[in-house]
Amino acid sequence: MSDLPTPQVYLVGAGPGDPELLTLRAAKLLQHADVVVYDNLVSDGVLALISPTAERIFVGKSAGNHTLPQEEINQLLVRLWQETPRRIIRLKGGDPLIFGRGGEEAWALAAAGVPFEIVPGITAACGMAASNALPLTHRGVAQACLFVTGHLQNGKLNLDWPALARPKQTVVFYMGVSTLPELCAQLIAHGRAPETPAAIIEAATTPQERRIVGSLATLPAIAKAAEVHPPALIVVGEVIRVAQGLEAMRPFASAAPKETNPSHTTQTADKVSR
Amino acid sequence: MSDLPTPQVYLVGAGPGDPELLTLRAAKLLQHADVVVYDNLVSDGVLALISPTAERIFVGKSAGNHTLPQEEINQLLVRLWQETPRRIIRLKGGDPLIFGRGGEEAWALAAAGVPFEIVPGITAACGMAASNALPLTHRGVAQACLFVTGHLQNGKLNLDWPALARPKQTVVFYMGVSTLPELCAQLIAHGRAPETPAAIIEAATTPQERRIVGSLATLPAIAKAAEVHPPALIVVGEVIRVAQGLEAMRPFASAAPKETNPSHTTQTADKVSR
Repeated sequence: MSDLPTPQVYLVGAGPGDPELLTLRAAKLLQHADVVVYDNLVSDGVLALISPTAERIFVGKSAGNHTLPQEEINQLLVRLWQETPRRIIRLKGGDPLIFGRGGEEAWALAAAGVPFEIVPGITAACGMAASNALPLTHRGVAQACLFVTGHLQNGKLNLDWPALARPKQTVVFYMGVSTLPELCAQLIAHGRAPETPAAIIEAATTPQERRIVGSLATLPAIAKAAEVHPPALIVVGEVIRVAQGLEAMRPFASAAPKETNPSHTTQTADKVSR
Repeated sequence: MSDLPTPQVYLVGAGPGDPELLTLRAAKLLQHADVVVYDNLVSDGVLALISPTAERIFVGKSAGNHTLPQEEINQLLVRLWQETPRRIIRLKGGDPLIFGRGGEEAWALAAAGVPFEIVPGITAACGMAASNALPLTHRGVAQACLFVTGHLQNGKLNLDWPALARPKQTVVFYMGVSTLPELCAQLIAHGRAPETPAAIIEAATTPQERRIVGSLATLPAIAKAAEVHPPALIVVGEVIRVAQGLEAMRPFASAAPKETNPSHTTQTADKVSR
């Protein structure tokens, strides 16, 4: 038992949803946890790997209630440690340091003198890319990939549009379902061609995964008709054509096929099921 | 044994080096592999998890020899399947679809009618971020992160400098050790302030990890003096100050401290060991 994890706070990435995409480190920590603090973005399959003796603290949205504010989560982690030093896991969807507010939690812990370790997770974009055979970089097509949040900050979408609209890159928006129409309109307004391929992938890597493909011009209407809900990622870039080409050639997919079922499709938009 | 992996080709991310950062899925596939095709970027710790009965095929650089060209690797994967359909693992450092040429391998497989699955891995930037408590996004500091290759393509560094030089984002260069001086000079030439924090992290997540911090103006000289070798990542952005603030406050690091030992340091550059 010499390799039991040290008592401290662990900020752990739970990956994109599929429990098999947890890291070995994360799985081991969950097995030996004393307390696990988690929210909505962590899937049931991942929660099933938590030690049955661990205390579980849910800090996400429940019916009619909002998520615990970030500052309160930070203080909760500090307080849990101060009450009893033990193995406290803060389990976060995806990766803690890409739109996971892990930097803020780490700061609060460090400021309070609480020892901690950060364990990376498969960020949602990588999980989505793998399950859709959608390369985030591809020679001659995209030499960079860029992850950005489509979430409103202080009620506005205050993004660096000229940078996001540049060619030869793949842009993945996290948390952009409600702002999709504005995202697409701004990219077009800043010079991206309206026919640039764009896709929205709902619940990537889970059995509920749906992928809907269109263009900057058409995706908002298609996504609305298909009633896409969070969590979902929006991808913009020519790599979507690579994924479509791959899909067309593939002899069979190893995963069970998933149907997308938007009520409307258009000639300019492809609906792809996998 | 009903959940033995299906015979097919698996393009699998091995993560950044630490074998505990493999996914559960990747570890299971290695245990049940018939053949594993791998290269230099896969660490010994990860290779130790391969089934002892699996055939291993090394396609990386050995003394005096170059890496097998990508096209030959693609054809090797196809041929291995055509010889005998079995569980063939193409194990790649980091994530297959971020600078991993996984899209090209997938295309060759699909074109030849070979069934395949892609398994994501922790990309080097996420591993580095976690082991250095360096948030890739951080509220008010970086609302986007961007991964780009610093590797020469056709003998030149042909990057989108205006996009890379924008503020409020974290830029991570993969494979940029030899081009570091030009990377820094171009970012400055395109408007990034010379005092923008910049760091180079060698062998992230392994026991040999070193982190050297400076600015766009100072990092090339410091990295040269420290004799930094690949694999290494270059990070540019204000989030480095967040990591330094965290480091200064931390009561203790959970991992063994690592010393960086550049022969010169300057007042404007911090050398940080962890």
